[in-house]
Formats: sequence, structure tokens, C-alpha cells
Amino acid sequence: MQPDEATQQRLADIVVSAMMERDAASNYLGMRITSTGPGIATVTMKVKPEMLNGHLTCHGGFIFALADSAFAFACNSRNQSTVAAGCSIEYLRPALAGQQLTAIAQERALPGRTGVYDVAVNNDLGQLVALFRGKSHRIKGEVIPLDLDSASH
Amino acid sequence: MQPDEATQQRLADIVVSAMMERDAASNYLGMRITSTGPGIATVTMKVKPEMLNGHLTCHGGFIFALADSAFAFACNSRNQSTVAAGCSIEYLRPALAGQQLTAIAQERALPGRTGVYDVAVNNDLGQLVALFRGKSHRIKGEVIPLDLDSASH
Amino acid sequence: MQPDEATQQRLADIVVSAMMERDAASNYLGMRITSTGPGIATVTMKVKPEMLNGHLTCHGGFIFALADSAFAFACNSRNQSTVAAGCSIEYLRPALAGQQLTAIAQERALPGRTGVYDVAVNNDLGQLVALFRGKSHRIKGEVIPLDLDSASH
Amino acid sequence: MQPDEATQQRLADIVVSAMMERDAASNYLGMRITSTGPGIATVTMKVKPEMLNGHLTCHGGFIFALADSAFAFACNSRNQSTVAAGCSIEYLRPALAGQQLTAIAQERALPGRTGVYDVAVNNDLGQLVALFRGKSHRIKGEVIPLDLDSASH
Repeated sequence: MQPDEATQQRLADIVVSAMMERDAASNYLGMRITSTGPGIATVTMKVKPEMLNGHLTCHGGFIFALADSAFAFACNSRNQSTVAAGCSIEYLRPALAGQQLTAIAQERALPGRTGVYDVAVNNDLGQLVALFRGKSHRIKGEVIPLDLDSASH
Repeated sequence: MQPDEATQQRLADIVVSAMMERDAASNYLGMRITSTGPGIATVTMKVKPEMLNGHLTCHGGFIFALADSAFAFACNSRNQSTVAAGCSIEYLRPALAGQQLTAIAQERALPGRTGVYDVAVNNDLGQLVALFRGKSHRIKGEVIPLDLDSASH
Repeated sequence: MQPDEATQQRLADIVVSAMMERDAASNYLGMRITSTGPGIATVTMKVKPEMLNGHLTCHGGFIFALADSAFAFACNSRNQSTVAAGCSIEYLRPALAGQQLTAIAQERALPGRTGVYDVAVNNDLGQLVALFRGKSHRIKGEVIPLDLDSASH
Repeated sequence: MQPDEATQQRLADIVVSAMMERDAASNYLGMRITSTGPGIATVTMKVKPEMLNGHLTCHGGFIFALADSAFAFACNSRNQSTVAAGCSIEYLRPALAGQQLTAIAQERALPGRTGVYDVAVNNDLGQLVALFRGKSHRIKGEVIPLDLDSASH
């Protein structure tokens, strides 16, 4: 890992950790960040009984929320404030109560202020539950007030 | 309203009401169905503090969940079991804590087993918060065991 | 029609007509604009033999191209240069050789620089062939150098 | 390469080649298949002057058509007749006249009759022009009447 990458990695860790701390929704749903980096983030969430719909499978909104959080962490990981412009999700397999879901978000493209991120949501058998694609839009400002020098000490 | 429409309307009322009763997730999030009919459904939800993200706006996952529930009620309203195949959402304006959101789902096309539904999510000022499009896929079975004759008495 | 609307309508007519004139692709595919207005456009195209795929139905790319052109005309109709950021299409029914397709584009939302447009593509029996949704992004500049005063004489 | 893979590869080659032969649209637009395999396909197309829109960049419909063809070849490569249910495209960079575009389609998921395919469209500098996602639906029948034994001789 070259110095630049190390700095970017450290920045991602600090930024995403700070985002998670103030993100009431992701905490409320029991999400946990398991890894992050520049343009990437992995987040887990357990399917709880209150997340089930009438088919006794996880309501799509919670699968979406997990993917959306992973997307948000990934696209803000460079400390440039970024919001979601639009997202799509394809459901591939139901998620069941008690399952641990893992969302892996990866940057696919970042030309200018607009980015495309893909998120795969897997269950704890490693089976694909959903594929999510998020379009991001960078706005003004930084996620956290931070200069890289202070971050390196 | 012709007899047939009245029957369809009554069926939609019964089916959607039964779905809501067993839908832990929609109840957990405080959703309420304000109207329904064949291929349509209107659902409200208040943005609670625990739904906020780090920007202090409603986490996209909850806006999506509201739209997704309205979509599910609309596409099951004919009592033919139907699941979501995929969805997309465009965010147009942040939703804030305390706002009452209203999702209005409407069937746009239902050629065969596959349908397309549009959902508009508005805030309590009538401003558009998000546009959602859901693709449905009809599966085997009925939502509730019901014959229309018994429904009409 | 109030003066303002009349001016907007005239502007849309002039702008869209100028766009079509310099749009080699839309002309090449035989598209014709049948009506336009602020935020709306209707465009037709005949399915020609060279547009068929191996199933002997219209290749999705041409149905998409028709919808995309209608979308482009609609979102540039206010003479503010606007480009497509992303689009989605749902296919509902095959289009056949010889059919005249009609794409009707309508603005759904235009909050700030970003807009959402819906396009319905029908065949000549009035049946829905596809539903298209386009996300637009306004860039700098005008479509045609024009001041409204000169347009009004 | 194990025997099974070799057979699948040969099948993909035969099926995709047969599809291309009878696909008037892809031929009309000058597309060429450069490689294929089970669930994958790479297709190229040169941006011709008649493909330009009023901004003198390639009309989105042609970029979409290229991606859509690659998607169709990939999802039919196992010789099971499959059609597109819906597609989305994100534009990342304009394509210019004379550029050779390359669309690389890859299967992301194929649970049951429904599949998800991602297509990346690059220009001849290797820059990403668009990201496309296609949802496929398998229908009855085979692409070409073929038994694997005869294919192996």
C-alpha cells in the first residue's frame, strides 16, 4: 500500500465512522460497518421480526435501506459531501427473519460530480438477495471538517 | 359506479386491509392506508427522529419503504399474489423530521403477469419528495382465501 | 391560454423544431415531431425492417431511441440546455414491422437542475409498448441563441 | 477448461453467431461480436455521422442499442430463449463520431427465469461511456434447434 492509498484509507475510515455515529436510521436498524475504503463500504444488518411483510419475508424497504446506507458510506468516503440522486434495486431471493445480510458497495464510475455505485446484498449463506445501483451527486462541502495532516497524526 | 367496479373496490378494501394487518414492517414504521382500489393505494407515514440520516434528513430507505408498501398494496389489490421484481426511485427533495409523507401508487400497465406501478411521494406541503417505479411479478395463489361471492355478501 | 403560456408554447415550438433539424440520428430513424410544448413532446417513428432483431420484433434500442428523443425534446423545450443523466425502460409488448410508434414525453418533476420525465410508447392500436423514465441534468447555455422578444415578433 | 465449460463455450459461440446472423438491427448499425461465452458477450460498434444528435454527440439510443444487443447475446447464450424485461442506462461521458465503442455484457445473477446483466460501454480510449443494467426473462423454447451432441461434432 502506497502512502497515498494509506492516507485515503485512513480518511475513509474516519469519515465513514463519523457518518455512522450521527446516522440515527442506520443505527436504529442495527446496521454495522464491517469494512470501508475509498469508494467502498461493507455493511451488515440482521433481519428482525419487525422487518417482515405479510409474506413473512423481509420488507423490500429494509433491504433497500441496507444497500442505501452502504452506498452512502461508499460515496462519501472521500470526505466530499455527496447525496443520492436515484437508485434502483432488483430483488433476486427473499431474505428471512434471523438472516444476517451483508451489503457490499463499490464505486463503478465517478466522472465529475456524478457517480455510479453498485451494491450486492448477500444473505449469510453467501447467496445474492438483491442488486442495487445508486447514482450519486456531489454537493458543496465536506462530510467532516478535517485536514489530512491532522488525520495523519 | 357499476356493479363490477363496486365488487373490485370491495375486494381491494378487504385484501389490502388483510395485507396491512399481517405486515409487521409497515406497522412498525407507522404507515397507515388512507385509500385503496383496484390497482391503486395511498399510504401515509410520519418521518420520525430515528429515521434521520447524518444530514438530518429522512434516510432514503424509509422513503423507499413507504413507496414500496404502497406499491405492494396496489399490485396485490386484485387478490392475485404479486411480488416486487425490481424498483427504482428518484429523490427530488429531502424529507424532514415531523413531516407526514403520502405515497400514491397507481398501476400504469399490467400486460400478463408483469406490471408497472408508479408511486409519487409527497410531503405535507404537497411537494414531490420522490418518484418511485415498481415492476411487479404475479406468482401463484391468492393473497387471501376468498371467493368473490362470499365477498359480495 | 395566457400570454405567458403562449410565449412558452411558441418558445417550445421554435426550440424543438431547431433541435430536430440538427439531430441527424432522429432524422435518420425517420422520427417526426407531432406536437410539443413546455416540458412535453410527442414523436412518432415507423418500425422498419432493418429495425428488427432475431425474434422479428423491433430491437429494443430503437424503441428506446424514440423515447429518448421525445425525452430530449421535452426537457430542452424551455431552451435551457439539458442532457440525459440516465434512463430506464420497461418493455410491455413487442413492436412489429410496419407499426407506427408514438412516444409521448411529459415532465414529472423539475426541482432545480435535475428533472424527471416519463415517456409512454404506444403502437398504432393505442397499446402500450414501453414505459420510459428519463432523468435530465441542466447544463450551461441555451439550446438556440434566442431572446424572447425577438421570438415574439 | 473442463469438458462442460468447453461445451458451454461452443454452445454460446454457435447460438450467438446464429442470433447475430438473423438480427437485422444489429447488422444495420454495424455491430460486430468480438467474443462470447456462457452469460457473456462483447460487441463493438463505430459511431457514424448519422448517429449524432444536435449536440454532435452520439444519440443515447444508439449507445443503448449497442448495450442492449450485448445484453441479448449474453442472456441467450445458453440457448434458452430469453427476452428483455427492462433496462436502465447511466450516461457517463459523450461518445463522439468516429469512436469505436465496445460493450461488455456480464451475467450478474440468474435465479430461476429472471436474470440481471451488467453491460459496460467503453470508447476506444478505454474510458467508460455508459453503464447499462438489463433484466431478462426466460420464455419457452430454444434460440436455435440444437442438441448438444450434434454440436460437439
